[in-house]
Amino acid sequence: MQKKSVAVSIGDLNGIGIEIALRSHERIKEMVEPIYCVDDAMVTQAAKLLGLEVPSDFHTAKVCNNVFEIRPAHITKEAGGYSYRSFFKAIELCVNGFCDAMLTLPIHKKAWEKADVKYKGHTDALRDRFQADAIMMLGCEKMYVALYCEHIALKEVANHLTYAKFYKFLEDFYRCVTLRENEKVAVLGLNPHSGDGGVLGDEEIEIIQPAIGAINAKLGKDIFEGAIVPDIAFTPKVRQNYRYFIALYHDQGLAPLKALYFDESINVSLNLPIMRVSVDHGTAFDIAYKGKNPSNLSYINAIEYLMT
Amino acid sequence: MQKKSVAVSIGDLNGIGIEIALRSHERIKEMVEPIYCVDDAMVTQAAKLLGLEVPSDFHTAKVCNNVFEIRPAHITKEAGGYSYRSFFKAIELCVNGFCDAMLTLPIHKKAWEKADVKYKGHTDALRDRFQADAIMMLGCEKMYVALYCEHIALKEVANHLTYAKFYKFLEDFYRCVTLRENEKVAVLGLNPHSGDGGVLGDEEIEIIQPAIGAINAKLGKDIFEGAIVPDIAFTPKVRQNYRYFIALYHDQGLAPLKALYFDESINVSLNLPIMRVSVDHGTAFDIAYKGKNPSNLSYINAIEYLMT
Repeated sequence: MQKKSVAVSIGDLNGIGIEIALRSHERIKEMVEPIYCVDDAMVTQAAKLLGLEVPSDFHTAKVCNNVFEIRPAHITKEAGGYSYRSFFKAIELCVNGFCDAMLTLPIHKKAWEKADVKYKGHTDALRDRFQADAIMMLGCEKMYVALYCEHIALKEVANHLTYAKFYKFLEDFYRCVTLRENEKVAVLGLNPHSGDGGVLGDEEIEIIQPAIGAINAKLGKDIFEGAIVPDIAFTPKVRQNYRYFIALYHDQGLAPLKALYFDESINVSLNLPIMRVSVDHGTAFDIAYKGKNPSNLSYINAIEYLMT
Repeated sequence: MQKKSVAVSIGDLNGIGIEIALRSHERIKEMVEPIYCVDDAMVTQAAKLLGLEVPSDFHTAKVCNNVFEIRPAHITKEAGGYSYRSFFKAIELCVNGFCDAMLTLPIHKKAWEKADVKYKGHTDALRDRFQADAIMMLGCEKMYVALYCEHIALKEVANHLTYAKFYKFLEDFYRCVTLRENEKVAVLGLNPHSGDGGVLGDEEIEIIQPAIGAINAKLGKDIFEGAIVPDIAFTPKVRQNYRYFIALYHDQGLAPLKALYFDESINVSLNLPIMRVSVDHGTAFDIAYKGKNPSNLSYINAIEYLMT
């Protein structure tokens, strides 16, 4: 089987992304054909700072003509703007069919802000670029969590939950993942104890359960199960039954996920015309360019996800 | 040192509580002086169903004259009413100074409902009995989570968060726990990324951080730290720094806790005139009276908490 070609957006060059890319190249080139969206002059500068060699088969795609000074662990406009351009380069390589998928290394949101990038992060930008309801899913082989609500204030969550949107979310989700035979997907409730029969909130009765019932009926099989009591959903016994979890809001899903699998997790964007994965960590300025050999577990897992 | 005397409310006799009490008696009597709030006729009936002997030193306190048929794994009015009376017996043993603390075995909420008990559960009833703002804290030695909001719908959480109430909560909490030298307490944010500087909600800036600042100033030391990003608070690295966590709402704290320490956790009621602990599991009708030897880890840990 031919290896997939993966466009790697290089992230914020003041952070740990480039070190991970350089150090992991030997390993990931066995799995995929990586194309790094970064200019050679910048790779050379970073490698020198890191005391690493640039591998001879470290294939790059030109991002722009700007050469700037890497300032380890600093939030700079230059690194912010560059990471944004690298990201869009990777998108275009996929859109044009030159690459099969993209992998994003971490950007720094404040650096994007400094560079006047109008998006809060990768997912926002992807939604706008493709005008599609991207679904954010995080996790690792043992457990993936897809988020119905993402980056909104907690007090807005209940207002965002409507039958029509939730039904469509489940439908989109189902189309984007490959389930095993008889595999079920866990759908969490919104409220403590999933509302306890309506006493602690009625969204389970009014929205979540009817949407699950309707989508299962449409699919002709009971794929989605719920509303599962949120603080029970991630206990060891329940986790045995599921690989995929639908969380209603950000921290409901990500606090347990990161408590259990912080280092291993990756971030997948579902429901887009292109395939995109990301590492699930930040720029880690505290250890950038310090010879600390940052963990590449999330990076490797992201590559492995692309191979499934 | 004299052993503490502990009133054990027996819970729903159709569930696993009595089996745990009988099987663990030899072990816990080494640690405390247990007084079981259950009538001898009921213990004898349960023991017979379980095929267990009643230990000769299984000291009981009379609950009432009602003898009824134990119906394993059934929700009955009789078992509901009895568990309620056993619970109040245990409270009174503490209030009267006959016992030093109480431990509650699990009740079935629907059975309380059937028996026309006006409370939703133990904590509600304790609040009413003592007219006090009981604080619900769950966890085990490695990690305790105290809940600012408990059993309310998610959409009500943000409305419940006010500066005055939150400040008082931190003050009460501090008075009720014994911290080690230089020990800090983690206080979570309400919103994803703790609001990201106000972009995803402003409760951190308006309420949580000012309340933390004010209470630390009053205490004259930086006891409380936050607002900690909720989905980062329970990662292995952050957990190394804290034993106590203040969660803003039910599932924010309990989903990660139960993902990590489901079997071991106990439930402690802080801020009451009496000391009360509870197991953190339910009646487990699926394994009640089936010779499955239910785990007593939570029960033993609850007893151990009373010894600290």
